[in-house]
Order: sequence, then structure tokens, then C-alpha cells
Amino acid sequence: MSNHYNSAPLAYNYPLIIKQLLNRAKTVSQDQEIIYADKIRMTYSDLFARINRLANVLADLNLDAGDVVAVMDWDSHRYLESYFAIPMSEYILQTVNVRLSPEKVLYTINHAKPKVLMVNSEFAPLIKDYQFENSSIEHIIWLDDNGITVEGVFGDNQSRVTGEYESLLKAVDDEFDFPEFDENTIATTFYTSGTTGDPKGVFFSHRQLVLHSMAEAATLGMLPNKQGVSYGDVYMPMTPMFHVHAWGFPFTATMVGLKQVYPGRYAPDTLLDLIINEKVSITHCVPTILQMVLGEAQERNASFGGLKMIIGGSKLTEGLAKAALAQDIEVYTGYGMSETAPLISLTEFSLDEPEMSEEEDIARRCMAGKPVLMVDAQIWSEKNQSVGTGKDKTGELVLRAPWLTQSYFKNDDAGTELWENGYMHTQDIAYMRPDGYINITDRLKDVIKSGGEWISSLEIETILSLHPSVADVSVIGVRDKQWGERPMALIVLKPDAKETSSDDIKAVAEQAVERGIIPKYGIPSEFKFVDDLPKTSVGKHDKKLMREMYADQTEI
Amino acid sequence: MSNHYNSAPLAYNYPLIIKQLLNRAKTVSQDQEIIYADKIRMTYSDLFARINRLANVLADLNLDAGDVVAVMDWDSHRYLESYFAIPMSEYILQTVNVRLSPEKVLYTINHAKPKVLMVNSEFAPLIKDYQFENSSIEHIIWLDDNGITVEGVFGDNQSRVTGEYESLLKAVDDEFDFPEFDENTIATTFYTSGTTGDPKGVFFSHRQLVLHSMAEAATLGMLPNKQGVSYGDVYMPMTPMFHVHAWGFPFTATMVGLKQVYPGRYAPDTLLDLIINEKVSITHCVPTILQMVLGEAQERNASFGGLKMIIGGSKLTEGLAKAALAQDIEVYTGYGMSETAPLISLTEFSLDEPEMSEEEDIARRCMAGKPVLMVDAQIWSEKNQSVGTGKDKTGELVLRAPWLTQSYFKNDDAGTELWENGYMHTQDIAYMRPDGYINITDRLKDVIKSGGEWISSLEIETILSLHPSVADVSVIGVRDKQWGERPMALIVLKPDAKETSSDDIKAVAEQAVERGIIPKYGIPSEFKFVDDLPKTSVGKHDKKLMREMYADQTEI
Repeated sequence: MSNHYNSAPLAYNYPLIIKQLLNRAKTVSQDQEIIYADKIRMTYSDLFARINRLANVLADLNLDAGDVVAVMDWDSHRYLESYFAIPMSEYILQTVNVRLSPEKVLYTINHAKPKVLMVNSEFAPLIKDYQFENSSIEHIIWLDDNGITVEGVFGDNQSRVTGEYESLLKAVDDEFDFPEFDENTIATTFYTSGTTGDPKGVFFSHRQLVLHSMAEAATLGMLPNKQGVSYGDVYMPMTPMFHVHAWGFPFTATMVGLKQVYPGRYAPDTLLDLIINEKVSITHCVPTILQMVLGEAQERNASFGGLKMIIGGSKLTEGLAKAALAQDIEVYTGYGMSETAPLISLTEFSLDEPEMSEEEDIARRCMAGKPVLMVDAQIWSEKNQSVGTGKDKTGELVLRAPWLTQSYFKNDDAGTELWENGYMHTQDIAYMRPDGYINITDRLKDVIKSGGEWISSLEIETILSLHPSVADVSVIGVRDKQWGERPMALIVLKPDAKETSSDDIKAVAEQAVERGIIPKYGIPSEFKFVDDLPKTSVGKHDKKLMREMYADQTEI
Repeated sequence: MSNHYNSAPLAYNYPLIIKQLLNRAKTVSQDQEIIYADKIRMTYSDLFARINRLANVLADLNLDAGDVVAVMDWDSHRYLESYFAIPMSEYILQTVNVRLSPEKVLYTINHAKPKVLMVNSEFAPLIKDYQFENSSIEHIIWLDDNGITVEGVFGDNQSRVTGEYESLLKAVDDEFDFPEFDENTIATTFYTSGTTGDPKGVFFSHRQLVLHSMAEAATLGMLPNKQGVSYGDVYMPMTPMFHVHAWGFPFTATMVGLKQVYPGRYAPDTLLDLIINEKVSITHCVPTILQMVLGEAQERNASFGGLKMIIGGSKLTEGLAKAALAQDIEVYTGYGMSETAPLISLTEFSLDEPEMSEEEDIARRCMAGKPVLMVDAQIWSEKNQSVGTGKDKTGELVLRAPWLTQSYFKNDDAGTELWENGYMHTQDIAYMRPDGYINITDRLKDVIKSGGEWISSLEIETILSLHPSVADVSVIGVRDKQWGERPMALIVLKPDAKETSSDDIKAVAEQAVERGIIPKYGIPSEFKFVDDLPKTSVGKHDKKLMREMYADQTEI
């Protein structure tokens, strides 16, 4: 029967491409504001004209559909323009993670092979050593806020420089007729931070980003005003635009027509100034940035005036949540990763909240939240079977959603592993409560498998960290003949607590067993005191290295 | 380059099919409530089981993918179940408009050719005369709340009766594995009321309904709590489920996991009881129903407690809006039509509302609203060119959106006309303000073209209705040698005002010209007093008939 339902010859078969995100804003938000730090104030009307201008600049470079345009910039109105103009022109936007080590930054550029590099003058030192001879980069567009000219910066490769961004924009027309094309066309690519091995490239289609934007608007919209987003909110990112599309918010906020503030390079004083002066009401960041702005505000005795803040990237601890709430920040958790575009789950708030204590309220803000609209989230056993819900049903969190990377770029094996059995494997160990709240207990790689049972290294670390002598602690699995693996605790003592013994620390774990918080087999078989714990480039415990370092010491 | 971005072999290429709307609700909303009038209270958990059971009942009928299942019911939990189970089984749900005349109801059934009819016992009299001999209907499922058994109802066609809904559901398993299929598969069909000519069938794909649900959630979510939707709201339809998917809300509310209330046949006392007892907080209806419940509440001296209500179908007048606000209903306007699934535009409210007077506030609530996310709305001249914005830029409202019917079922000519030049033609005459508010001034068919200028018949009617002697008035265009068309006013005088003359009425129009409210050429060239104005089956002025009746009297 279905084929009896014919479409009219000129019926518009609406493709989900990024230019459609602008439909509403173009009609209703022409006068809305966009602000770049203390440098630029413009309107959406200007934004639309500048997107068209950037498209004209790129069109003059004679690129092919599917060519990559890489951007290295702090959070700016330029970045916002590139979010739209590049994919809308059927090119692929590479958001270069400038926080990686210099070698890794250059690795991601060599791997994605952009034809155009839009680079902020502040990154000139990083890019100076780049081997342009073997590079895909044919055109360089110079972004600058500090009066640094591009003359001489690229030595022999000066001829590749197309010009300075603002001059280029001024020289072209402010109208551009964006093409229509297949919604499955790739729109963006970027690289995971790659704490182990080389960074891996993820990629997202127009359709995926449009659906992510719609779901993000719906999800944030469904939260009450106090925590969610409504018309009239003011958005500023505090997770950078090179990091998973700044959570997709620049797309979503533009679609909705919110006032937007882009803070440039993150500095606590600038961030706080902008929050206060521009009345920023919704943002997202990692715990470290939250801590920085909390400190800045305390020094100034300033309040955040109910700023709504979603925390992701690392776990929001209950202590930090409490501190943020005390300084009038409505803080809560979103969960996602590079592979997921990123939004997967979010703390829920409701108009008809059940009675709850402050502890319960804070606890839910620190969990990974409930799955958002359209997301199919399950906890799987090692046999790739759903284990259901409940605190005792721990397994790997696996996902289906309309916006998950379909593989890793030029890394088919890793892509196949990512999508084993038709669900995306997060490598996060979690359980799901019957009400849908997800609680991440560990990374799959860091979980310790002892006698057929799983031990959460995170959980044991949290327990041991409660001992007043402990400055830092990491728990890893080491090989064991009888049990397969057993936990070993690596402990850094506080300078004034050097006499503390293993047994003192062990006593905390034993007490946790008595209280039923951890299982008996969770008590580490060995406690090692060390001066320092190895860390990755982004400051996380490098457990892979630790496992290598202590592999020799097994069997314990 | 695009083809370098390979998908992993088992990457899930997420189709936008209706079963995906349940992903979040299945994880987080199992205990949420669904209520059917004063008859049934159940949970989402029950809903999911019953959807599976209905799918098993249908599976036993050996239908083919694409077969049509027609439903004739008042708003019930059963209807909600059919919204999901039928399309999720790859059949097409026909929502039969039972408010049409009996011949037209049967016409729509004969036209859509359902193999299954699910029919409420209250419609037995209507269906009794149906010619089953030549019918597509092979199976009848009996829906009943009143203890009326199906025995003997269908005479010789009793063998087509599969059984009673609840008994059938009880007899089958509560698990069903819904298939995956192309998101462009048709999910629903229904018929426009067809005030002129036969009803026309519109149809919507899974993809369209999923996108409509996401955009509706985002749009309602972006409104502040006072007018929009948040987690914790309680939904009840007051536009029937056979009418444009009850505005798509049953899909959206289920996706979001709201408590839902289905009121059965609309009776003012039941509606008000449910609003009060179940704490209904969001609904939608036509002005007539609003008037009914306002009256009922006044009699009982009851308040609506801030009930949020979207009005569509007919224009919300400023008087009615004022009355509703006074009785604590947050009333505002949504615009859409059968062809648009239906949501196109909505009144905007914001956290940072500009200062406005009560008159301004009420005026915006009565306009057609601003386009919602993803909608491309334009005003076109007769030459199919966008005329831009401004009160003097009147033309036809044309649309692109991801959820517009792609034609009319088995009526290619009408479909081609609907999609002339690649935009969907609403046949509504409107202008758009620079801030995006749409104001509908007339139906295209009813607009009067005089000397190259367009005269809004609605506007002239509003002016003439201000004369205290006028009970009812209709303004139509009649042929004119010099001007092409000229307006003629047909006036019903109040019983006690029979001496009123044409000149008395004309004076009101002349005063409106003086004040610049209407143009001089808007004054009707002729005023006719009549006893009655012809009306359509749904009670609207039948201008088509009037034009025919008075065609002879031209040229004036």
C-alpha cells in the first residue's frame, strides 16, 4: 500500500542539513545579540551576513565538496561562523583540539588532511614547526585579535596564506546561496584526546547534528526554568568549541535564537566578568573550570545569580556541587563523550519534584543523569546481554542514538570494536537505577576482575581517600594466579603523615566492608606507598602506565 | 572525501521510526500515570504491555505491511495504544474524523480502504448502514465502555468481527518484537474536513512524526514554565485524537513521559472535573470548546489554576482571550492545519519579556504566533515571490518544514497545486511582522481582489460587526467590470433592529476608513440584508455557496 502515497512533483523533501537550523532564527531573531569577550558586539543579522561572507571567501578557494577546513581558535564569534559556513558549504569542519600536546595537535592535522587552516595568531608558535612541505594545507586564513600580522610567520610557506579573516570577509559579498545536499554528508570531525595511543577521529553528519540540536533543545527545554533553557536565556560556553562542538550548544543556541557570549581563551576573571555583565544564565564546563570561577567569585565576593551549569567530562563530586550551589550556581551533570556528539544523559528536574533531602538532591546532581529523548541506553554484561536495572546490575553502558559517530576515521578496527553487536560501547562501567538514573562506577579498562567478580577501582579509591593521611591514591588490577586479577593500591601520603602504615589504610577499607559499602574481595591485596602517581597530558591518572610499571611485581 | 568516512559494519544507522519515541519513557517513566476519563488508571508500564498486546492481536490478522487500520473512537487510552501499535507494526493508522457528516465519514473509509476497523460501540448507528459487501474491511475490533455487545450489530457481516478489544488483548502475549524499517514508511492518514468538495486525504511518514514530536517538545519546552511544557506537567487533549493527531501531543507527551489524561467524548463537566481532579496543566482546543469550559467553570465558581492552553482551528478573539485569562487560563495561539501535522507557529513568551500593556499582551496571544524550530515560513505574492515582512506586505503564507504532507492521497492534481513552486501553499492570506509574528488576515479563497489590491473580507466583517444592529455578517467578492471584484456585505440584523439602513452600516465602514483602519476601497459597494447566512457542516460561513448565490446579481 505504501507506494500508493505519492509525493507531489515539487513537494519539498526536507533534508536535515545544518542550514535548516537557521530557519527560525532568520525569521525571528535578527536583532538578538552575539558577544565576543570584550571585543565585539554584533547581532544575528550580522552573523547571517558574516556566515555568507565566509562562505564566499571559501568559495574563492576552489575547494571540492567534502574537503576539510580546520579551525584553531579560542571560543569566538569567528568559530561560531565557521560552525555554520563550513558545513553549509558542503565542506567538513575540523575543530582542532589545541589543548593536546603539540605533536598530537599536528598528528590530528596530518590525519584529517585539511586543505584550509584557519588559525589564531596565538597558535603561531605551535604551528611554526609544522612541515608544510608534506602537508595537505593549501590555504591559511589568519585569525587575530592582537594586531599580530601574518607577515613572515610562515617563512617559505607565506604563499599559502590567503589573508586575514576580517579583511577577507570585508572584500566579499554578504549574500550566498547555500546548496542542498544529502543529509548524511559529513559535517564535522575532531579527535578524541587519546590518553592511550594516537588520537582517534570521530565524525558527524549534518543529519546527526540537526537531530542532536533538536534533542538538546527539547531536553534542556523540558527542565523547569530554574535548571533548563527557555527563550530569554543567555548562553556562554565554558567547555571549548574545539571540544565536542562545545556540547552542541552553539548549534542549539543559534537555532533557538538565544543571546550568545563567546569568552575567547578561558581566564577566570574574564569568564566571571562576562557572566556578571552579560547576565549569562546557562553554561557547561568541567569541574576544574568550575573550581576556578568559584575561587574567582569568592575573592570578589560575587554571586552567580542562579547561573545554570551542566558539568561533564569528569565526575562532579558532591563537595564541589555543594560549594557551587552555595555560591548560587544551579549545577548538575550531563554525560557524553567525543563519540556521542555528545549529549546522552542529563540530571532530571521536574515541576512536581518529590520531597528530597539536601543529600538526595546533591547525589542526583552528581550521577550521570537519565537518558535524554531518543537515546536507547542499556547496561550489558560481558556476554553482550542487557542486565536490566538495579545497583547490583553493573556492566558496560552501551548506546543507540541518532547522533553517534559511525566509526573512527581511517581506523576500521577500532570502529568495529566500538560498534560490537550493534550498540556503541562506551567502555564505561555503570549501573542503571529503576528510575533511569545512570551511575558510572568505572572505566572498563580500569575495572578489576577478581574471581569472576568486578571490582570498581574508582569505588575503592574513593574509600581509601577518606583516610586523613592520603594525598592521592590509585587502585589498579595486577595479575594473580588464583583470582585472575587482584587490586593493588598506590598511595601518595601527605607530607606530614609519612609514618602511616598499610594497615592503617587497610582499616578504612575493612570498615567499608563491614558497612556493606564494598565487597570483601574489594580490599586491595597490596598497598604501595609512592612519591607520585603518573599522569596523562590532561592530568588524569595514567593507569595504563601504572599497570605496566607494576606488571613485574606480580604475581602478588 | 566524504566516502572516506566509513561506517563500522554493525554501526546502528538509527531510523526515525515511531518506536524510538518510546526509548526514554521505557527507561525512566514506567510508573508514570495514564488516565481514561473516570474509567481507567494505568501506568506507562501497562501502556507498553498493552501496545505489545495490540500488536500481537493485529499480527494474528495476517495483514501486509502498509495495510490501513482505521480507528473510530473518542479520546481514550485505546486510541493512544493504536497511535503506537499500528504504525510500529508497519501498518497505517487512519484516524477517522467522526464529526464529519455520516456520508463523509463513510467516504473517507471507502477512500482509505482500511482492512481493519476498530470502532467504538457508540458509533454503531453510523456504521450500521455501511455497505460491507463492497468494503475493504475484513476485520472489525469492537471498542466498548458501556456494556454494549457486538452481537447482531453487523447483521450478515458478523463474521468479520474479530472480537472485543479488551478480550482480544487479554488473550495474547504482552511481548512483541517490533520490526525496523524505512523511516519514510507512511504511519498515519486522515482526511481534511472538506468544506468544499470531497474530504482530501493527507498522510505522514514515521520520520515526519518523529521530527514533529521532537520539534514540538523543543518548542513547548523553550517557553517559560508558565506557558510551556516541562517535566511534571499533566497533559489532556481537548482537540480530538482524530483531528491532526490531537496536535501531535499524544506522541510528544509519551516521548517526554508526562502524565496523560484522555477524556473520552468531550462534555464540559467531564473536562472540568478531569482538569481539577487530575491537575491537568497543559491542553489545546478550539475557541468553541474553550467557551464551553469557561461557562461550566463559571457556573461552578471554579478556577483553572493556571492551565496552559493552546488555541487553534479558529481565531482566538481578544474578548475570549481576556475572559480565559480572567479565569486563570494561560491562553495563547498555535497555528497549523491538517496538511502540516500540524504545528507551524506558536505565540512566543520569554524569560526576559519586554514591557507591554495588557492590550499588547492579549494581541500577541491572538496572532498566529512565530514559526517554530525548523519551519521556513514566507509570505508570497501571486507571482510566487517572497514579499518580505511588514503590515503592508500581505500575501499567501507558504511553508517548508520536515513534517508537511507530501501530497493528497489519490489526488495528484490537488497535491501538485498544494506544492506549487516547491513550497506548501496554506491558502491563508497573512503578513509577517519583522519580529516573526504571523497575522492571518483571510483565506485565499475569501480574499477580494479589487483594482489590483487585496481586500481582507475578515477585516471588513470585523468592522461591520461593530454596528450594534448587526447579528451576523459575511463579506464576499462579486465580479465587477471596472475593478475585477468588489466587496458585497451580507448582513443579518438583530430581531429588534429591522429599521437599520444600509447607510447606517456603511457609516461604520466609512469611520474605519477615516481612522486609517481599512482602505477606502474596502467599503462594500453593496449591502444586502438577509434572514440567514448559509453555513458549512462545521458551522463556518459557507462563502463558496454565497458567492454562487450572488454571482447572478453581478455585475454590481
